Formats: sequence, C-alpha cells, structure tokens
Amino acid sequence: MKLYDHPTAPNPRRVHVFLAEKGLKIERVNVDMQKREHKAESFMQMNPNGQIPVLELDDGSFISESISICRYLEALHPSPSMFGETAADIGRIDMHLRRVELLLGRNVSTSWVNGPIVGKMGIVVQIPEAKVQSDAFVCAFYKRMDKELAVSRMIAGEEYSIADITAMVTIDFAELLVNLKPDENLSHLARWRAEVAARPSAIAH
Amino acid sequence: MKLYDHPTAPNPRRVHVFLAEKGLKIERVNVDMQKREHKAESFMQMNPNGQIPVLELDDGSFISESISICRYLEALHPSPSMFGETAADIGRIDMHLRRVELLLGRNVSTSWVNGPIVGKMGIVVQIPEAKVQSDAFVCAFYKRMDKELAVSRMIAGEEYSIADITAMVTIDFAELLVNLKPDENLSHLARWRAEVAARPSAIAH
Repeated sequence: MKLYDHPTAPNPRRVHVFLAEKGLKIERVNVDMQKREHKAESFMQMNPNGQIPVLELDDGSFISESISICRYLEALHPSPSMFGETAADIGRIDMHLRRVELLLGRNVSTSWVNGPIVGKMGIVVQIPEAKVQSDAFVCAFYKRMDKELAVSRMIAGEEYSIADITAMVTIDFAELLVNLKPDENLSHLARWRAEVAARPSAIAH
Repeated sequence: MKLYDHPTAPNPRRVHVFLAEKGLKIERVNVDMQKREHKAESFMQMNPNGQIPVLELDDGSFISESISICRYLEALHPSPSMFGETAADIGRIDMHLRRVELLLGRNVSTSWVNGPIVGKMGIVVQIPEAKVQSDAFVCAFYKRMDKELAVSRMIAGEEYSIADITAMVTIDFAELLVNLKPDENLSHLARWRAEVAARPSAIAH
C-alpha cells in the first residue's frame, strides 16, 4: 500500500491525523504540487480529479478522496473506531461529518477559491459575491458549533471521531489561509479546538 | 422507527429507493413543505438544518442526512449491500459516491439555488455567475460519467450501489427542475440511466 500525498496540504492532513489516531504507518510518495505533478497525465490516471491524496492498494487499484481512504483503512483496522461501531453511532457520526463538510467545508472552499491567494494564481474565474455569502455561512456555522459544543465534548458526542478530524483540519485551514478565524467569544468552540489540538495526532504530517 | 419525509422531494427519494432495494418498510410521517413545517421550531429540534428526511430512532434520538440514514439502515440490515462489504469495495463505492456528490450534486444544487424557480420564491440572494459556472461543471461531469460508463456497468463497478442511487436521483432532479438534461449523444450515460430506471426501486416513493 502506498499513499501519494504532500506533507502540508489540508486534505492529506485528514489522512495523516487519522493514521496517527489508529497508530498506522503507510509508505508515502511525495507529490510535488509546486511542479503541478498532481495534474500530470500519469497522476490523472490514478485520480481523474487531479487531487491528492491517493491510496494505491496492493492489487494496483486506487482510492482517492481523503474520507474514502479513511473508510477503507477503518474497515481493515476497526479499532480505535473513528466512524462508529454500533448502527446508531455510525449514523450519528456520519451525520455530523456531513454537516461539517456540507455547511463548513463547502463554504470554506468557496471562500478560498474566490479569495486573494487563488486570485493571484489566475487559474479560475472568481465571483466576489459568492465569497461574501460563503464567509457569512462559515461564521454562522462557527456559532452553531459553539452552541453544540456547550453540551457535547466532541462534535458527534463524547468520543473523538472523523467529524472532529475533519472540522479541525478545515478550521485550521480557514484560519491560516482564508482569514476566517472563529470569533474569540465562541468559548465552547475554543475549548474544543484546544482539546483536539492537544492530541498527539494533531501534528502528524 | 419513524421517517419524517415527503413523497416527492429529491433527498427523501434517495432513502425511498434504498429502502426498496433492501426490501424494508418504515413508518412514515409526512412533513408538509408547502406549509414550511420543516422550518417550524418543533422540526428544527429534530434537525437544526430544517431539512427532510429525518429518522427518529426507537430511543428518541434523530439522524438526519439521507446518506447517514442509509448508512444506519445498512449497519442494521447489511444485505443486499449498497455501501460495499470488503474494505476495497467500501473505499471504492464511497469514492464514487463522493465524486457524484461533490462534482455533480453540489453543482446541481448551486444551479438550482441560483435558478428561476428559487428566484421566484424570493428567499435567497441569487448570483447568476455562479449558475453559469455550475451549469458548465454539471455538463462536464455528465461527459466524464459517459466515458466511465463506457467501461463500467454501474458507477462504482459492476454492482448497483448507493453511488447509483444518488446519481439517478440527482440527474432526474437536474433534468426535471434545473433544466440540465444530459446531452443525448452521451449514449453510455443513457444506457446506465435506462438500466437504473428499470429497477422496481426507481419508482419507490
């Protein structure tokens, strides 16, 4: 098994944190994004999306999408569980993961694509009004998280899960590269951020 | 167990098709969307997103998000599998499901939100340029599907899966309500559409 990735990109970070939580190690192949190796013909045959990470299985097939790679690894190494063990846990964790992806990740992505860093690359047609909307949705979701984390230790309940990994990576990216830092008054969100950042897995790369 | 839903809305349709494929029946509670019951305070306590469907479990807890409801039901009733049984199947099906959701569903949703029907409702600030972009992404994904379905019977391989259910429901919605019908020259996509539409589950409601 081989993981094509990059030590500092946000999507691979989800897999790195997941691997650290599981205590797993996988052979890595560094994809040079500066040289746009992820858009090369040979890479696109592994993942037509032209994105990292990609996991090459021992039979020569490929799985891309960070969360799908984590689901594959969870099926092989169920413990400690990051996606839930009982049917109710599986459903609830997936629901929270989806809310983080659809209401937070999707909007952080829109703000990133329509923001100044991508603007300077000159590779997409930007829509400034879309960024105004998505910035507002991100801030609204931070407030909702704060309210929910007032009564829940982690995002999907008491236990740390893939929903926490995804939210941590997304918010760190939003703060660092999209200028969308959660308001300091959101004390429950800040408590949760400090708690997940203190886990040894948070600095896995 | 009780499913709060609506017989004709697209997201609940995913769960209806899934239930039909599994041969399962669940008690239904009809949510009157015309009366905006899904935005009422009592409904928002079940799902703060204000969206159907929502599954009420026997312990009184709630799972929303169509796919999360399906994952919960798959854990209780594994056969026939819609999310995969082996680790490799689980990873590959999830990857294809995510591509359908992120590259097709997300863009159909942007075209719908910024299109004429939602425009007449007057409930959101519309961005016409966003619809131009998302319409183009939808058409590009149809072409990619056509290419992939030339060599694969179903979306994630030979077997029918949750990726097919999601793609069928999304494309039917795009054609009917967003005016994004796949080009008739895309014969492999048309072959697949005919095949999934011929399954008895396709008309479940």
